[in-house]
Amino acid sequence: MVDFIGVSRVRELLARRGTARFIEELAAEIEADFLRWDSFEKSPRHATHSSVGVIELMPASDGRLYSFKYVNGHPKNTQEGLLTVTAFGVLADVHTGYPLLLSELTLTTALRTAATSVLAARRMARAGSRVMALIGNGAQAEFQTIAFHELLGIREVRLYDTDRRATDKLERNLARLHLPQLKVSRCASTAAAVAGADIVTTATADKRNATILTPELIVAGMHLNAVGGDCPGKTELHRDILLRPDVRVVVEYEPQSRIEGEIQQMDAGYAVLELARVLAGDAPGRASDAEVTVFDSVGFALEDFSALRYLQRIHQEERGTRSQIDLLPQLHDPKDLFGLLAAKPQRLIGANDEAA
Amino acid sequence: MVDFIGVSRVRELLARRGTARFIEELAAEIEADFLRWDSFEKSPRHATHSSVGVIELMPASDGRLYSFKYVNGHPKNTQEGLLTVTAFGVLADVHTGYPLLLSELTLTTALRTAATSVLAARRMARAGSRVMALIGNGAQAEFQTIAFHELLGIREVRLYDTDRRATDKLERNLARLHLPQLKVSRCASTAAAVAGADIVTTATADKRNATILTPELIVAGMHLNAVGGDCPGKTELHRDILLRPDVRVVVEYEPQSRIEGEIQQMDAGYAVLELARVLAGDAPGRASDAEVTVFDSVGFALEDFSALRYLQRIHQEERGTRSQIDLLPQLHDPKDLFGLLAAKPQRLIGANDEAA
Repeated sequence: MVDFIGVSRVRELLARRGTARFIEELAAEIEADFLRWDSFEKSPRHATHSSVGVIELMPASDGRLYSFKYVNGHPKNTQEGLLTVTAFGVLADVHTGYPLLLSELTLTTALRTAATSVLAARRMARAGSRVMALIGNGAQAEFQTIAFHELLGIREVRLYDTDRRATDKLERNLARLHLPQLKVSRCASTAAAVAGADIVTTATADKRNATILTPELIVAGMHLNAVGGDCPGKTELHRDILLRPDVRVVVEYEPQSRIEGEIQQMDAGYAVLELARVLAGDAPGRASDAEVTVFDSVGFALEDFSALRYLQRIHQEERGTRSQIDLLPQLHDPKDLFGLLAAKPQRLIGANDEAA
Repeated sequence: MVDFIGVSRVRELLARRGTARFIEELAAEIEADFLRWDSFEKSPRHATHSSVGVIELMPASDGRLYSFKYVNGHPKNTQEGLLTVTAFGVLADVHTGYPLLLSELTLTTALRTAATSVLAARRMARAGSRVMALIGNGAQAEFQTIAFHELLGIREVRLYDTDRRATDKLERNLARLHLPQLKVSRCASTAAAVAGADIVTTATADKRNATILTPELIVAGMHLNAVGGDCPGKTELHRDILLRPDVRVVVEYEPQSRIEGEIQQMDAGYAVLELARVLAGDAPGRASDAEVTVFDSVGFALEDFSALRYLQRIHQEERGTRSQIDLLPQLHDPKDLFGLLAAKPQRLIGANDEAA
């Protein structure tokens, strides 16, 4: 039997743990894994593109545990009432090859993306950053806002989205959270939102080379947390921003980011830093208050590895409903697979047990 | 909600459908997909190797449906009472990127491997083949035996395994099947089993360059169904067999087989035929009764694609227990992922419904 964490269980875990604490603990797990960067077998994700979207497989392993995530990206889905991005993943034991845990990762991906954004911003944003512009107010927006408010000290978010209803939704959800220290400002344009911001987070979904941020909006000292551009042909920053002499660009895993990140617009010699080096202190995330820093985030398999291991841990720690699925045969004689057809049935779906 | 086919449901489907009919229908699906070979996006599988085994991801897509299989290969697992190979897979909708079905594929992989072996043998073995040697009597053996007996007309299987208990188990299982037209002979060595055989199936599990079949055992007209050698460093045939002037070698997907198949022992110019061409009639699977034919089978993602689609179909057709898992969020507003945290819980695991 394989442990199963569905959407309901992640919601339960979030309710019991608290969203901010969940993101904080997850950020710590991700940081710990980035600090042992060389222990991981890394590869760019395997992508299958169609005219309307992409389906990707993202494997990672540290030689002890193996994980992969399945994730799609279909910007047109929202027109049909479906999510742009859904995901699930598996954690497995390298020694036996057996899967240990199957988990939803749609909610979890939003949480780990916010956690990784904060990890980068802690090293890259100017100390004392208080105002964040949030361009793109869709599925990622609340998670980014909570993470930057609770973990980085952002006191004002300035919202803009071409879809007014997305901003309505975000305002409504933030109001419900009762965050007295957070000012939420609605802006009439990207330019209005960005003006005066210390940090600019872009989390838009169009699968094309969009130009969400143009050079004249960017001023010295800003940190750009570019979350939305994450596959070939899908970018958010005008390339002249990346050509500024005072720019510093940090990526997760360079071979993947050259294909999928904002830096797909640049030639192969364009200088970037990997996040692992910044987190390890081998290179600064920001060299001066005047630099423009860009976290060109596409999402890397290591973050999902950390997230699955974290879920596995708190799934054991937190009370509630634990399920298993019969994804694997249980055999008396492992060479007698056929004998399974004659044996008594296994339980179909593991009993839900209320843990002590 | 995503349809879920666990081990129990596959066993139920096999019981209702019958094993031979299941393999026959699955072979027809696989053949139909190989006949539209150019419709598929194909890639070698993604392999993560460790000192004790390998974990692989095998994606395939025809532009309408997408599938992947997770599969491990850990020969030492049997010493710990675990299976050498376990697998599961997902079928997804390319248009939305949403997964449709999660299924066990451990049992199913054995069935689709046997189905593919028979498809190849129908074109490659001599007409009137009646005797098959079966070297390696582990988890694959019963499925290969049933497939070649019921679908190809094999009347005698000649068994050999270095592990006597594996042969005991196979004999016992075959006896229970009451196949009056099948003679089962136990042999004292590979040489004894192979002598006089029309077809030689090798399905051994050691992860190393073994030499299960040596040149002097092979006589003109034999068909070798080489199932066990399927990853780098894991082969079963002496390379001199592949160097015979009268040999014809068929593989599933040449770029993958060059890495994983018996032909990993040969240089890049070594001539092989792809199964799709043979099934389409573009090239003969056998040119004369004297040729030695080799189906150098490693297992290709297309076969799992066919298997998942077949499972999806019969899962709908056959009565019994149908389950779903809450792997995907269901949202009123697809941009309001966060709103899920405030909404009422979904059902945890879908109700089992006895279909009409």
